[in-house]
Amino acid sequence: MKAWLHSFPDLPDTVASPADLARLELESALPGTPCTLEHVPAMGESYRVEKTAAGYTVSGGDSGLLYGAYALITRILSGESVPPVLASAPKYGLRMVDCWDNPDGTIERGYSGRSLFFEGNRLVYDPARMRELGRLLASVGLNVLCINNVNVHFPGQLLLEDMLPEAAALADIFRPFGIRLMFSIDFSQPMRHGIPTADPLDSAVQAWWKETAARVWTAIPDLAGFLVKADSEGRPGPFTYNRNHAEGANMLAEAVKPYGGIIVWRCFVYNCRQDWRDRTVDRPKAAFEHYAWLDGQFADNVILQIKHGPFDFQVREPVSPLLLAMKHTNLAMELQLAQEYTGHQIDLYTMIPMWRELFAEMPADNIMSIAAVSNLGRDANYTGHPLAAVNLFTYGLLAWDPDTDAEASVSRWARLTYDFTPEQHRCLVSLLLSTRRTYEKYTAPLGIGWMVNPHDHYGPNPSGYEYDLWGTYHKADRNAVGIDRTASGTGYLEQYSADLQEKYGDPATCPDLYLLFYHRLPYSFVMKDGRTLIQRIYDDHFEGLEETKALAEAIAALPFPEPDRAEIFRRMELQLRDAREWCDIINTFFHRLSGVPDTHGRVIYD
Amino acid sequence: MKAWLHSFPDLPDTVASPADLARLELESALPGTPCTLEHVPAMGESYRVEKTAAGYTVSGGDSGLLYGAYALITRILSGESVPPVLASAPKYGLRMVDCWDNPDGTIERGYSGRSLFFEGNRLVYDPARMRELGRLLASVGLNVLCINNVNVHFPGQLLLEDMLPEAAALADIFRPFGIRLMFSIDFSQPMRHGIPTADPLDSAVQAWWKETAARVWTAIPDLAGFLVKADSEGRPGPFTYNRNHAEGANMLAEAVKPYGGIIVWRCFVYNCRQDWRDRTVDRPKAAFEHYAWLDGQFADNVILQIKHGPFDFQVREPVSPLLLAMKHTNLAMELQLAQEYTGHQIDLYTMIPMWRELFAEMPADNIMSIAAVSNLGRDANYTGHPLAAVNLFTYGLLAWDPDTDAEASVSRWARLTYDFTPEQHRCLVSLLLSTRRTYEKYTAPLGIGWMVNPHDHYGPNPSGYEYDLWGTYHKADRNAVGIDRTASGTGYLEQYSADLQEKYGDPATCPDLYLLFYHRLPYSFVMKDGRTLIQRIYDDHFEGLEETKALAEAIAALPFPEPDRAEIFRRMELQLRDAREWCDIINTFFHRLSGVPDTHGRVIYD
Repeated sequence: MKAWLHSFPDLPDTVASPADLARLELESALPGTPCTLEHVPAMGESYRVEKTAAGYTVSGGDSGLLYGAYALITRILSGESVPPVLASAPKYGLRMVDCWDNPDGTIERGYSGRSLFFEGNRLVYDPARMRELGRLLASVGLNVLCINNVNVHFPGQLLLEDMLPEAAALADIFRPFGIRLMFSIDFSQPMRHGIPTADPLDSAVQAWWKETAARVWTAIPDLAGFLVKADSEGRPGPFTYNRNHAEGANMLAEAVKPYGGIIVWRCFVYNCRQDWRDRTVDRPKAAFEHYAWLDGQFADNVILQIKHGPFDFQVREPVSPLLLAMKHTNLAMELQLAQEYTGHQIDLYTMIPMWRELFAEMPADNIMSIAAVSNLGRDANYTGHPLAAVNLFTYGLLAWDPDTDAEASVSRWARLTYDFTPEQHRCLVSLLLSTRRTYEKYTAPLGIGWMVNPHDHYGPNPSGYEYDLWGTYHKADRNAVGIDRTASGTGYLEQYSADLQEKYGDPATCPDLYLLFYHRLPYSFVMKDGRTLIQRIYDDHFEGLEETKALAEAIAALPFPEPDRAEIFRRMELQLRDAREWCDIINTFFHRLSGVPDTHGRVIYD
Repeated sequence: MKAWLHSFPDLPDTVASPADLARLELESALPGTPCTLEHVPAMGESYRVEKTAAGYTVSGGDSGLLYGAYALITRILSGESVPPVLASAPKYGLRMVDCWDNPDGTIERGYSGRSLFFEGNRLVYDPARMRELGRLLASVGLNVLCINNVNVHFPGQLLLEDMLPEAAALADIFRPFGIRLMFSIDFSQPMRHGIPTADPLDSAVQAWWKETAARVWTAIPDLAGFLVKADSEGRPGPFTYNRNHAEGANMLAEAVKPYGGIIVWRCFVYNCRQDWRDRTVDRPKAAFEHYAWLDGQFADNVILQIKHGPFDFQVREPVSPLLLAMKHTNLAMELQLAQEYTGHQIDLYTMIPMWRELFAEMPADNIMSIAAVSNLGRDANYTGHPLAAVNLFTYGLLAWDPDTDAEASVSRWARLTYDFTPEQHRCLVSLLLSTRRTYEKYTAPLGIGWMVNPHDHYGPNPSGYEYDLWGTYHKADRNAVGIDRTASGTGYLEQYSADLQEKYGDPATCPDLYLLFYHRLPYSFVMKDGRTLIQRIYDDHFEGLEETKALAEAIAALPFPEPDRAEIFRRMELQLRDAREWCDIINTFFHRLSGVPDTHGRVIYD
């Protein structure tokens, strides 16, 4: 068993149900502690653990018993005290992991090896690893697994056709872990079957989806639903037929409704063929413009899945205005565990500090589900970088309870994963919690984002997207940098409530780390702490590099067991190189533009 | 039959020799004109065509008869007058076409479809197309065809092993066209056969190459030789064993000498892992530094093949100082027909004006052979863009006679290819001759080069290579742009003779178009014509775009036959878009840096 459950014994392939698994796990993890299970179907996924004279009583629905068992086991194994009553219910009903796995075995934005589910355009998997994976996900309360890429290219459609028997067998494997499968679908799939259109208002299309849903749910009665990326980055969708996205999503929703299925509809729609010369378009405005006016028009079993920020998983983005706007629509927030823009699971980047910031700005009740793009792959440790597992672990805890404390959850993961002295443990937790700010410091400054190498998104390239089609520009010139997104600029900020407009609209009150997201500022702009903008850019980058050097030294001093140790060290060397490139290139880029020397005389290459 | 021989009838597969082919071609092309062939073996490739009462007498060696026949035929078919005596001998003995074809059927930097020679890691070809190709090459006097990529990756080595029988059959096909094959080889190939080293001074290595040469030349007795890219961009070579390149090349030369084989040794050696911060290295200096000191040390049957400029086939580079320096070594100049950096056979780019400039600066006797990277592929028209065939045609004429006139050779190609009125013909020739300057105007300014998208090298990206490993930097900042390559800078210019140093060393006398190759200059620098450098950059780019628009209009008015017409128009649309992107992006890039407005108030996007 890998990752934070490495001390757990292998599971038999005979586990019948979550309750059965709960019993097994308690017996093997807490052998001297008698635990009684009380199945209370009405409790569903909730659980209540009560201390008894000799052990514990765990009550809950079928899955609730399992979650209660893991809650108890992980607390005890990580040395935390167990309160007399430990009771909990998940905040969000669907706690989803979205895999971007392609049928050919590759993973879009995958940094942990090849797909766990696909190879050679077939659905093939190792049942033992599936059980390991099911256990990892269940142990942190995750309950929906979408196994294929939202960009559904042929033969991805065959999940609903030829591959369905294998998919049903996979669903059987995950069922005892309380995990339901989900499939990404191709909106134009009816056209593979002689129907000349995919128009959602066409009766033949509607009939095809209904027949398909009947067939699919017959094979997998508890399938969670379909995930849809429509009219986005070249994918087909309702716009082709002059239909809006409510019409598109609701048609699918009606087809899956008899089976309790849901339609998760991604809101990642923007003009990805933008002309860089065109100042009238501002990409972050796109999702709100496409969807906000449709609030209230989506069927009950549609969930709009909205990326946490208005761009695309940058290190720092404000909360998407769409997540704050649609009060009469089921919403899910989409996070990204895969480190697409955040170091490819080479650079250390612990995400929960960022997630906590999101929830600080967005009421947890605004959404009713949560999803995260997977960082999983076929690597032995599942996440490529052994320490990247902390993101999957803490995501599970956050998805269950958005008030989850960053430090406590990282600490629990670390205790379960490594057998360190208290001092070593504190050191590791503290390092992990610092990595997001460190990464942010040495990459694109102050919320500007996007200064990455195009396509693969690893490493610095200050103007890599500057003249491209993707709508992600910084417009840096010899005097100033950034896009004015206030009312005097693109008006993006007007998509927010008055109080947020006030907070972010004035450079004098806007938090520093969001300054260049919202404002175009001269290099001479004076920050709240008295430094100029250009000096702040230099300082952050030199600090980011120095912090990375210190991180590497501290990491080197920790007694990681093999094979983690070698893997961590190898990647740390690459991160050091990456941080140096970022620091020097960003500083040089801005020095060449501004001509302003560093106040402290540090080396900036000309 | 395609390209400029489209009116020629298909050839039978029974042609026995160049003389036999000469007879056939004369009979079919000039049916009413009796021609007598006089085989004079001592004349070799030379020919003499004399007008007789009723027709012509062509004398020459075996290949000379063929070249004489084509000289006569192409002049008559293109309506040129034939002088009473038309006699010629080729300036260069080896007139080579280097295909960068990979065994998997792809072509490195190929823009005309897949390989004519390879597919599925096997040497497979259409014999009829091979004869077409042989005829095209022979008709312009080209006599060596290297069929595989200089980057020899497995299974490219098998040309000397398992693929040898098919290669011998291919050599049989090309022999009647006076064309000999050449193979690119892998310097480390002995290590595939149990020899633990590729050290050129190791006796087992030497023995392996001798046995291999014996085997290869037994199969193909007239093989021209081997082409070698060693110690370059990751390829193996003598440096691994602390040997110099004379030691490496001479070892191979000794192995092939008994068979009259030659070793063509590429001099494209530089540090391709350069740190952009390192100001002590200047890539254009590399070839001279690696080879000039070895002058006189290479075996007689070694030819050093040197790219025409010190970088890599940019639109404007000075003549490589190595081509001027090595007086006691056999040299070949390498040109590139494939439009790697010059528009991918989408943008129009006729090369002979550039080649004429090279020969104006380099005595033709400095070299004894000439090579060009192929622009050929499996597309029906062989060169992707129908008008790109002009480059293959004029290259052949230039390789035979470096004094070939640009206009006359383009005109001959045009007359052979298209049946236009005199006015249309003049228009086409004039357009083609203008395309190089137009392309130069809208791309990187004044000799600076490299502002292309990394990797694929199509389209603008002003800083795409600025922080990369390839040693190709412009160092543009808010005040100035360029690298000082004079004695006060990197010293590159000191690799040239005193007169060239004088000509280029002073910005006041340096020709404008080379200014930013040799000098770092402020945007306020005043050019000879009174314009500032920045205004000159703007002007060139706006002019380049306007010229492209005019080019498109003129091209649209010409009555190209199908399928050329559709192909030409489609590509012209793409070129227009490309030219606009280049113009706007380069102007914006420099405007953001300099802050200087355009004197004429034209639109530069901010």
